[in-house]
Amino acid sequence: MKRILVDMDGVLADVYTRFLELYEEETGNRRSMDEIIGIKEGEAFPEVFRWVETPGFFRNIPVIPDSQRVLKLLNETYEIIVVSMATEFPESLTDKQLWLNDHFPFISWKQVVFCGNKSLIPADLMIDDHFKNLDNFNGETIMFIQPHNINNKDHRHKTVSTWAEIEKLLLHEEIIF
Amino acid sequence: MKRILVDMDGVLADVYTRFLELYEEETGNRRSMDEIIGIKEGEAFPEVFRWVETPGFFRNIPVIPDSQRVLKLLNETYEIIVVSMATEFPESLTDKQLWLNDHFPFISWKQVVFCGNKSLIPADLMIDDHFKNLDNFNGETIMFIQPHNINNKDHRHKTVSTWAEIEKLLLHEEIIF
Repeated sequence: MKRILVDMDGVLADVYTRFLELYEEETGNRRSMDEIIGIKEGEAFPEVFRWVETPGFFRNIPVIPDSQRVLKLLNETYEIIVVSMATEFPESLTDKQLWLNDHFPFISWKQVVFCGNKSLIPADLMIDDHFKNLDNFNGETIMFIQPHNINNKDHRHKTVSTWAEIEKLLLHEEIIF
Repeated sequence: MKRILVDMDGVLADVYTRFLELYEEETGNRRSMDEIIGIKEGEAFPEVFRWVETPGFFRNIPVIPDSQRVLKLLNETYEIIVVSMATEFPESLTDKQLWLNDHFPFISWKQVVFCGNKSLIPADLMIDDHFKNLDNFNGETIMFIQPHNINNKDHRHKTVSTWAEIEKLLLHEEIIF
């Protein structure tokens, strides 16, 4: 059974929607997704490191549309491992597992990894929104498009903007491996 | 550089000392280590699953003697990855990372993995106190002796009772790999 590493933030968890909400709550200014295109998360939202270390932050993140339905289907065909670079932010760890239990109850705790280096886990495919993870991965790669990476498209990684595209790639005619 | 997976509970973290303290606090009875030899943790301490899901539990665990000194030395010669089966107990995750930061500050967050399946991470050597982890590992193994495994010694795994023994095995004359 082929193993797929699935990232959390920016792939399952819609962190940008929450960042925009918090930015408005704290500054009174509403920004649009368009304004932050091509800007790194930490530059677009200077408070992001404080937010992700605040207990409760990761309990209130919306789910990326279609990710629950498609990941449940993929979980029947592939070995799914949800992997999050979270050990840098200790306060995020408990919240992230509780969030997964809430929204992805079909993903067992045995299928979850919180770490600081994704290259420790060999797999056949990685779905992620960060070049630092995808570039160091030995296997097939799918980049999930988010504001911070949208201007950096290149030919190293297949790109998708929706889970429906992932469904098509991995479960229908366009199987990539 | 050879990679070593180092377990937390029962190898770095002296959970038994804390279990005995909590048992006395809650029942008024003091048990000795001798009384629980050969008994699984969950049978020796029926409240253990409640304890490990209590926020704060893992912040107050004593450190196994010599583990800080020896792991710091090993960290200069080997690629050390601290791996803990913790995703089953979400409330433990944040506390475990904070405990590592407190007591093992030379172990970077990049060297920590919280998961539910240690066989996801290939390595050359595993130091652990549980057969379920050691038996499924493809590499050299060292079993750290704890009350629950002391009667189950066999020839599948090299056994140690102290970090001084690990120091001798991995840094002095008796290098095992």
